[in-house]
Amino acid sequence: MPLGEFDVIRRFFRTPALEAAGDEGRVTLGIGDDAALLSPDPEKQWVISTDSLIQGVHFPDQYLPADIAYRALAVAVSDLAAMGARPIAFTLALTLPTVDEDWLEEFAAGLTEAARDHRISLIGGDTTRGPLNIGVSVFGEVNGFKVVRRRDAQPGDLLCVGGSLGDAGAGLALVQGQAVPATLDEQSQAYLLQRFWRPLAQCELGLELAGVASAGLDISDGLLADAGHLARASQVALHINSAQLPCSAALMHWPAAQRREWMLGAGDDYRLLFTLPVASERCLSVWATQGFEVSVIGEVVAGEGVWLDDGDGPKVVTDVGGYQHFKDASND
Amino acid sequence: MPLGEFDVIRRFFRTPALEAAGDEGRVTLGIGDDAALLSPDPEKQWVISTDSLIQGVHFPDQYLPADIAYRALAVAVSDLAAMGARPIAFTLALTLPTVDEDWLEEFAAGLTEAARDHRISLIGGDTTRGPLNIGVSVFGEVNGFKVVRRRDAQPGDLLCVGGSLGDAGAGLALVQGQAVPATLDEQSQAYLLQRFWRPLAQCELGLELAGVASAGLDISDGLLADAGHLARASQVALHINSAQLPCSAALMHWPAAQRREWMLGAGDDYRLLFTLPVASERCLSVWATQGFEVSVIGEVVAGEGVWLDDGDGPKVVTDVGGYQHFKDASND
Repeated sequence: MPLGEFDVIRRFFRTPALEAAGDEGRVTLGIGDDAALLSPDPEKQWVISTDSLIQGVHFPDQYLPADIAYRALAVAVSDLAAMGARPIAFTLALTLPTVDEDWLEEFAAGLTEAARDHRISLIGGDTTRGPLNIGVSVFGEVNGFKVVRRRDAQPGDLLCVGGSLGDAGAGLALVQGQAVPATLDEQSQAYLLQRFWRPLAQCELGLELAGVASAGLDISDGLLADAGHLARASQVALHINSAQLPCSAALMHWPAAQRREWMLGAGDDYRLLFTLPVASERCLSVWATQGFEVSVIGEVVAGEGVWLDDGDGPKVVTDVGGYQHFKDASND
Repeated sequence: MPLGEFDVIRRFFRTPALEAAGDEGRVTLGIGDDAALLSPDPEKQWVISTDSLIQGVHFPDQYLPADIAYRALAVAVSDLAAMGARPIAFTLALTLPTVDEDWLEEFAAGLTEAARDHRISLIGGDTTRGPLNIGVSVFGEVNGFKVVRRRDAQPGDLLCVGGSLGDAGAGLALVQGQAVPATLDEQSQAYLLQRFWRPLAQCELGLELAGVASAGLDISDGLLADAGHLARASQVALHINSAQLPCSAALMHWPAAQRREWMLGAGDDYRLLFTLPVASERCLSVWATQGFEVSVIGEVVAGEGVWLDDGDGPKVVTDVGGYQHFKDASND
């Protein structure tokens, strides 16, 4: 069986020699969460995350330069949102096969829109020649230790998600020209394409969660896969009630089985998945009045793994799927 | 004429909309120097730099995974050295065509050596599938505003370089199997290959320069090209005395014309090039006793451009060459 992305990191790069080669005192969180933490002083922590987008792996060949620029930055910023950090700045490492001025103009326009929407400044980067590769590193800030990690979910906490699921999966199907339901209207199509190409990182919700949520991450690999990451990091079990999965009006055009597949398994939604102590349950109504769409989809239970309840009691999910680079994933 | 790397950055990405989309107050230096500066508080600044290494562009196809890992990190850290910053942490964005465990093992070993040599901790990153692309982002720290930028060189300052020049050019010639002088001994060969594959970023010298040098950068594109960057950023002229260029014993095996070509034009040396106010001239003898090899190779003069003096008076250099990605550079 080939090594997956996480195996590669764990086996080759997550070593004491690499993680502690420098000044350990400043590194308050290393490899393994959505982002790393550096602490210049006890009052503040900087949150750092790096992502690469590769054509054919992270996005289909049919793309617009503005969309892919938007998506590259939004996806990276989503890791800041997942940590409860405020975006500050980003760098861009752009590898291009050729200098196509029209392409660059559109790419820069999309990047500018994403920078504005996420209130984050470009501070540097480099451009090189080679196969298209878009590398984005983002920097954010959290106050003191009010940060959302993956590892402190406790039995009894509520499992919540910040908005509808599966939309990006449907959006990708549209991009790939798959057959669409006859009832699907133009507005719904536009919404789903937007959700795939231009996800908005949930930074404002993330700031609300800092100091409140016991654990959290952003859904990039799919609900079940990312719930698996959270469960493992916190050493708990997560029970998900499939009837409570939030579904957009646009997604309702598809049959129930297809909706379910996308809501549970499709990646790229970039919604925040988090656990909320029952003592903080009243936050849910506060957030609702503030306009945040937060749904309770299950709960944290002692044990391990991700469990799905289709109305006949929770059953453990054996193959959480999700997208791992390098693996012959069946559901990418 | 095709757009070069610097034109691409200037034209498409160095825009107010991108540079000021976020919280400007934290960004104390944006695009255009060796690295960016973020200031979490008035006492400290964080220095951030991103580099991508592409096979066939930044390194030849004949490489060892351990060497290329070492080189990727050292090259990125060199930007911290150029700013006078202390290395703290780095992230790795690794794009690989396949998972080859032997390759990864050697790569991680080289990366570990480089991390140890530069005292910098790996804090995160990602791995994806695609054409080989090694993206490294580095983070360092400077105290207060003791930072070395490119822009404050003053007429009268001395132009200095931190060690021999042209070695990496000769090293690359060896890698590419070019004819070598009959007198070249094994030890010299090993030294030159080391200088190409495993440059050591001059962080300790950089720390000495912080608060002392009026301007500086690291030589990655070649002496004349990088001197050109410094001259432009500081709006001064630089006069270089070709008789004073520091040449290693190993390089002396080549004829004078070849040595000169490499010392002036070859990239990849990663020596610090900086300007020193005459008032701080005594630092030179202090550094010598500390073991730093610093040579004075010229001076800063009012005016513009890079001027070369071959003993018959300074002549302006019209084609500073150097390596720019995307350009059909004649001397890469």
